[in-house]
Amino acid sequence: MEAKSGGTVHLIATGGTIASVPSAHGLVPGFGGAEILRYCQSALLHYDIEIEDLLNLDSSNIQPEEWQIMARAVARALTSPRPPVGIVITHGTDTMAYTAAALSYMLVNLPLPVVLTGSQLPITDPLSDATANLAAALAMATSGVPGVFLAFDRQILLGTRAVKVRTTGFAAFESINHPIVGHIGGDGLVLDHSCLPPPVNGPFRLEDAVDASVMVLKLSPGFDPGLLEALPARGCRALVLEAFGIGGVHELRRNLLTALESLIAAGLVVVVGSQCLYERSDFRRYAVGRSVLERGAVPAFDMTTESCVAKLITLLGRYRDPAEVARRFREPVCGDIQSA
Amino acid sequence: MEAKSGGTVHLIATGGTIASVPSAHGLVPGFGGAEILRYCQSALLHYDIEIEDLLNLDSSNIQPEEWQIMARAVARALTSPRPPVGIVITHGTDTMAYTAAALSYMLVNLPLPVVLTGSQLPITDPLSDATANLAAALAMATSGVPGVFLAFDRQILLGTRAVKVRTTGFAAFESINHPIVGHIGGDGLVLDHSCLPPPVNGPFRLEDAVDASVMVLKLSPGFDPGLLEALPARGCRALVLEAFGIGGVHELRRNLLTALESLIAAGLVVVVGSQCLYERSDFRRYAVGRSVLERGAVPAFDMTTESCVAKLITLLGRYRDPAEVARRFREPVCGDIQSA
Repeated sequence: MEAKSGGTVHLIATGGTIASVPSAHGLVPGFGGAEILRYCQSALLHYDIEIEDLLNLDSSNIQPEEWQIMARAVARALTSPRPPVGIVITHGTDTMAYTAAALSYMLVNLPLPVVLTGSQLPITDPLSDATANLAAALAMATSGVPGVFLAFDRQILLGTRAVKVRTTGFAAFESINHPIVGHIGGDGLVLDHSCLPPPVNGPFRLEDAVDASVMVLKLSPGFDPGLLEALPARGCRALVLEAFGIGGVHELRRNLLTALESLIAAGLVVVVGSQCLYERSDFRRYAVGRSVLERGAVPAFDMTTESCVAKLITLLGRYRDPAEVARRFREPVCGDIQSA
Repeated sequence: MEAKSGGTVHLIATGGTIASVPSAHGLVPGFGGAEILRYCQSALLHYDIEIEDLLNLDSSNIQPEEWQIMARAVARALTSPRPPVGIVITHGTDTMAYTAAALSYMLVNLPLPVVLTGSQLPITDPLSDATANLAAALAMATSGVPGVFLAFDRQILLGTRAVKVRTTGFAAFESINHPIVGHIGGDGLVLDHSCLPPPVNGPFRLEDAVDASVMVLKLSPGFDPGLLEALPARGCRALVLEAFGIGGVHELRRNLLTALESLIAAGLVVVVGSQCLYERSDFRRYAVGRSVLERGAVPAFDMTTESCVAKLITLLGRYRDPAEVARRFREPVCGDIQSA
C-alpha cells in the first residue's frame, strides 16, 4: 500500500442516491461517509480522509437553509487549526448543480478546492458510478486548485456552469456555455488551466445570508401574465423568466411586458434568460426582446438558470434594495458570466 | 430546368427570423412567402408551390389562437378541391417546437406531411440557413409520409419531440427522447421508417379548441409553494411542474406535496416532469417523487415540456372535467410518449 500523501481531505456527507438504500417508499438516503468509503475500491486508501456526516437528505429537499449548513461546514473546516487540502461533498444529483452554484457565491475567495460529487446508482449497486465519481472528486480535491467544482462521469465542471441534463445516464451533468475544466483518463486527472476562473484575491469570507423568495417561470405560448400579479403580495422578491429563444416574450393579447414592468415597479428583481439549454441569451437582438430590457429587466446573459437562482437567493439575503441586487447580479463571479 | 413534379406544395408563411428585416427596434418580420422564395436557390423551382401569407409574427407572439389559425389553414388546404401533396409552414424558431406539438394534437389523422421550418439568420443574409432548411422542408413535404414534422439543419424531427436547445447555432433543435426520423445528405432525404409513429387510421378531423390557462413552473430549491395558491382563483386550469431529476420535489419546511394536492383538489390538472432535458421522468423511483403521484399528479413520462403544454392546452379546450383531461393526457399521440 502506497503511503498516504497530499494532506487531509475533508469529506462532508449529505445523503443523495450515492448514500441511498431501498425502502418501502422507494430509495431513501441511509449511509454516512464511513459506509460510503467502505464500499470504495481500496486504492482510495491512498488519501487521508476525515469524515463529517452533515446531512442525510434526498437532494430534492436540499434548499437554501442547507446551503448555509454546508457553507458553514466548509468555513469551519478551513479555519480549523489543521485545515484540509481540499473538501469533497457527497450530494444527491437532483439539486447538486444549484448547490454548486450557491457555494460559489457563499464561499468568497475560497483558498482550496471544494468538490461536489454523487452518483446515479447507489454505491451498493455493483454497476454504480459512485466509486469512480468519488475517485475523481478526491483527485480534484487534492489538486491545489481553489474553487467550487463538480466531479462526475470522469469530468470536472465549474460549479457555476453545471446543469443536470439526464435523469438516469451516468453523463448526468453538462458544463453549459463553458468548457469542462478537467477530465480523468489514462493520464489521471488532467486540468485545463486556461479554462479556470482568475485566481482568488483577498482573504476568505463566508457570505451565508440567503432569502429563498425566488420563482422560476418557463414561458409558454399563451401564458397569462395575470398569474404573476399575486407574486409581490406573497413576498416573492425575484422572478427568473426563461423566455423564448435568444430573448423574446409575447405581448400580443397577453402583454407580458406590462406585467413584468408592474413586477419591477413593485420591487421585484426580474431576470430574463432563455429556455434553450445551450448558448447565451441576448434580448437586444429582436424587437420582442429589446422592450423587456427597456422595462428594467436584468439580462441573464449566458448564465445557467441554476446560477441565476443561487445568485439571486444569496444577493437577496445580503441586500434589501432591488437596484443593488440587480447591479450586483450583473457582476461576473467564479466564471458564471462570460458573454455579456 | 427539370419539369415540376410530385404535385403541389402549399407554403404557409407566418413570419419569423426567416422573414425578418432590420428595423430601428431590432429584427422584425417583414417578408411574405413570395419574397422568401425569391431569395431561394433556383433548384427549388423543381417544386410546384402555392403560397399563403397567413401571419407575419415574431414567433414569441405565436400563441394558441395562432395555432388555431394555422390548423384551420391546413384543414382548408387539404379539404380543397385540389389538395396539395404536402404543406410547409415557415415559422419563427422561438416557439416552433410548441406549434409543431400543438398541430400534432389539433390535426387528427392527418393524411399528408405538414412540415415546419424557419432559420436562425434571415433569408437575406448570405450565410443564412434558411434556404437549406426550406429545401429540406420541401423534400419532406413531398415524401408522402403523413404527420407533423420539423425540418431544420439537415434533420427531420417528429413534431411532438422537437425542442429548441440553442439560441444562435444552426443546430437549433434536438429530437428529445426519440430518434430523428430523417436526414439530408449525399443520398438526398433519407427517412428511417422504423422511427415513424404508426400510420393514420380513420378520416381527418380538425380539433381546433384551445384553452391557454396553463403555467410551467421550473422548480428551484427553496421555492415557496404559497406562490401557487392564487392560481385557481385566477383561472389557471393546469400546471406543468418541471421537478428535480428523475422526479422529486421538496417537502422539508416548504411542503410542495400539500400545495400540489390543494391545486388538484381545486380542479387543476398538475403534470409533473423533469427539468433535465434528456431522458424520462419516473416519479415512482424515489420516496420524494412517489408521494407526488399519490396526491393525484399526472406523470409526464418522457414527453417534452413543449408537448405537455400543447397537449394540455388542446385537451382543456375540448374537456371541462380535469379527470377527463388527465386521463386523455396519458394516451400516446403521434409518438409523444414512448416510455410510460
